Amino acid sequence: MIANTPATPYYAVIFSTLTTENLKGYEETANRMEELAKVQKGYLGIESARNKLGITVSYWDSLEAIENWKNNLEHIEAREKGRALWYKKYHLRICKVERDYGFEK
Amino acid sequence: MIANTPATPYYAVIFSTLTTENLKGYEETANRMEELAKVQKGYLGIESARNKLGITVSYWDSLEAIENWKNNLEHIEAREKGRALWYKKYHLRICKVERDYGFEK
Repeated sequence: MIANTPATPYYAVIFSTLTTENLKGYEETANRMEELAKVQKGYLGIESARNKLGITVSYWDSLEAIENWKNNLEHIEAREKGRALWYKKYHLRICKVERDYGFEK
Repeated sequence: MIANTPATPYYAVIFSTLTTENLKGYEETANRMEELAKVQKGYLGIESARNKLGITVSYWDSLEAIENWKNNLEHIEAREKGRALWYKKYHLRICKVERDYGFEK
């Protein structure tokens, strides 16, 4: 779903991924990471979509919150598995959201 | 594909969408907008994925490039059609990419 973020500024982590053929355990870990992210201090929301390319954007209230999430031990373990098994290529971008607006019918 | 962006800082536009049931003409226009974006001054790349939620992230070298693309007449027309026909809800976020890193096997 579309994340219900607060007024700007806040932060976004754009995680763009291409996966390998070996996705055993991937979905379980991805779901667990989403659940774990949600209970971190400073978490604001998450959006995710995948075709061949996967894009997950998580939103945070500060760079410190992003840094803490990066250093979460279970998250570190999952990243190591990701690099060893599931990801062929990824790019991670840490961004400051400066302006935003929405539309709803 | 994963966009091959330059060294930070640069800018990202995160466009998160939920579509209606009436997608007649949508894909054609989306493809045309992608082609048109690619020839704009300051364009750096684009990434796109869709399940129920669609996420398109375009990358730009400046806020001015984003503003010019926003004011492109064919783009304005497409946005109006999008709001009238194709989009149930969307959120657009303009971000400064402050840090990034990649991984490749």
